[in-house]
Amino acid sequence: MPHKVLRMHRAQTEPVTRPVMLAIAGDSATGKTTLTRGLVEALGPERATSICVDDYHRYDREERRSLPFTPLHPACNYMDIMEQHLQLLATGHPILKPVYDHRSGRLVRPELVEPREFVIVEGLLPLSTRLARACFDVAVHLDPPENIRHQWKVKRDCGERGYTPDQVLTELERREPESAAYIRPQREHADIVIRFAPIEGREDPPGTPLSAEVLLRPTIRHPDMTRVLAGDDTHAMHLKLSRDAEGRPVDALHVHGYASREDSGVLEKAIWERLEVDHPLPESLGVLREGPRSEPLAICQLLLLYHLLDKHPDRALPALAALPEG
Amino acid sequence: MPHKVLRMHRAQTEPVTRPVMLAIAGDSATGKTTLTRGLVEALGPERATSICVDDYHRYDREERRSLPFTPLHPACNYMDIMEQHLQLLATGHPILKPVYDHRSGRLVRPELVEPREFVIVEGLLPLSTRLARACFDVAVHLDPPENIRHQWKVKRDCGERGYTPDQVLTELERREPESAAYIRPQREHADIVIRFAPIEGREDPPGTPLSAEVLLRPTIRHPDMTRVLAGDDTHAMHLKLSRDAEGRPVDALHVHGYASREDSGVLEKAIWERLEVDHPLPESLGVLREGPRSEPLAICQLLLLYHLLDKHPDRALPALAALPEG
Repeated sequence: MPHKVLRMHRAQTEPVTRPVMLAIAGDSATGKTTLTRGLVEALGPERATSICVDDYHRYDREERRSLPFTPLHPACNYMDIMEQHLQLLATGHPILKPVYDHRSGRLVRPELVEPREFVIVEGLLPLSTRLARACFDVAVHLDPPENIRHQWKVKRDCGERGYTPDQVLTELERREPESAAYIRPQREHADIVIRFAPIEGREDPPGTPLSAEVLLRPTIRHPDMTRVLAGDDTHAMHLKLSRDAEGRPVDALHVHGYASREDSGVLEKAIWERLEVDHPLPESLGVLREGPRSEPLAICQLLLLYHLLDKHPDRALPALAALPEG
Repeated sequence: MPHKVLRMHRAQTEPVTRPVMLAIAGDSATGKTTLTRGLVEALGPERATSICVDDYHRYDREERRSLPFTPLHPACNYMDIMEQHLQLLATGHPILKPVYDHRSGRLVRPELVEPREFVIVEGLLPLSTRLARACFDVAVHLDPPENIRHQWKVKRDCGERGYTPDQVLTELERREPESAAYIRPQREHADIVIRFAPIEGREDPPGTPLSAEVLLRPTIRHPDMTRVLAGDDTHAMHLKLSRDAEGRPVDALHVHGYASREDSGVLEKAIWERLEVDHPLPESLGVLREGPRSEPLAICQLLLLYHLLDKHPDRALPALAALPEG
């Protein structure tokens, strides 16, 4: 019935603007929400919206008790509906998104999500299928060392979701095979892989933010940082030609946790200037929920902000007009 | 970003079959569910699925108390999401449909609906927008006289939804302006308008099923019934060239409630033979929830069944293989 498809297309009257889409994939408690929050604040909530694709759980907590897989398994999620909703958002359409209540473990009333100029999609499996990946302009994978991630998960799940530390550690063990099978393989599809971790062999004073190791794959065009950073390994930041786990060439950017605001300012300026915009840097970057500002986080968020604005059709003016005055 | 749209299309691998789509629009308590039930049974639930678009309520019962409109108002419904889901079903895609619980008046966990070969969409507003109408192969409007509808609504809402008769009558009065503004105007967009009503001026014994007056608009190709019925007004069924409320030419089919199974058998056979299939008539037609079989209902359902099968690409074989053996 192609005539019906045609009739549907012709009946569609609303003007469609297509948002810039960013995926932030990663296992549970890898810092996806922290990374996302600073970006939405920088762009302004009226221009950027974020969703979590863990809401596409097929079963609630009660139903999962009798099932042989964890929420990390694609079979535990409406993957086809997730793909469909990503396509709709990517083509400028609203969705009625399912809602999973992490506190009660129940699926509740869905909510309307209307695409803004920028849509940030974070969660366990946003890059796990070819169709889902096709919806994004920029794809990020968060990849902290497992011991750091376990600490973060215990802290969050006990603090906010009512679990005991033992329950969280048991669950982490139960999830490990599915993390290996479904979550970590998304890493190779990311344009940017970010690893927050302490630097091996260094003893930084307590309270020093984690460093960031950022793999920049040439699958998208990154801002040129070679003039600022290349060949200078002694500083708090450096850029190195490297190979990723699959042997492919990448740039590896290191930002050390002890970097001062002055250190990172040099790189921030270099990235920002590549956009050729006349506007101060947003202040929301690098802000952690607790503790001091993290320069490694700020640089990572700035890189993502660069890509979001760079792919915006009118970045020169409206995309920056809404940035909060620094 | 047309490249992204192209990438999404290319990444879409599943073979898509497009269901035949039937809309059954009408006000609250007009017999939509009864009409639908017999059709799904005749086609078999594994090949036909039905949804109710009243599930697209934007507000729950509690929220509506402080709002100036009833559930009949488009502003009280996610019309854009309804349109989107109809398009998805019409093009062979699954949807995660919202669910409104009529008993509690609350919006609850959504449910997955996968399109079958036939999708029947009933509800208050399925024909209310141009885009929604473009999704259907056949469009029906149910239009009983208001006094009959009020009786039906009191009976159902008091019996199944825990209301008192006074509450129902007050609600009907409150809804009347929105019925007039949004529900009844769908009538003019229907290919078939069905009115179940007693025949004026006749005193049939109690228990006689209501008669049906069926307007057949030439917007779709109806089975030719002129040879069987035209010009013979004395029988329990007749067909008359007429004009609808807008002055457009239509065929008006009358099936009287006192029609015997033998009477209706003549017309049923004529309709069925037009499909040129070698299969007995399904037995589920004409079945009411209580009371005797209704020949007018059976004929109406048969007409819709005719159109569903007629528009099925392989109606000759698979579409009928699943019909229950008469």
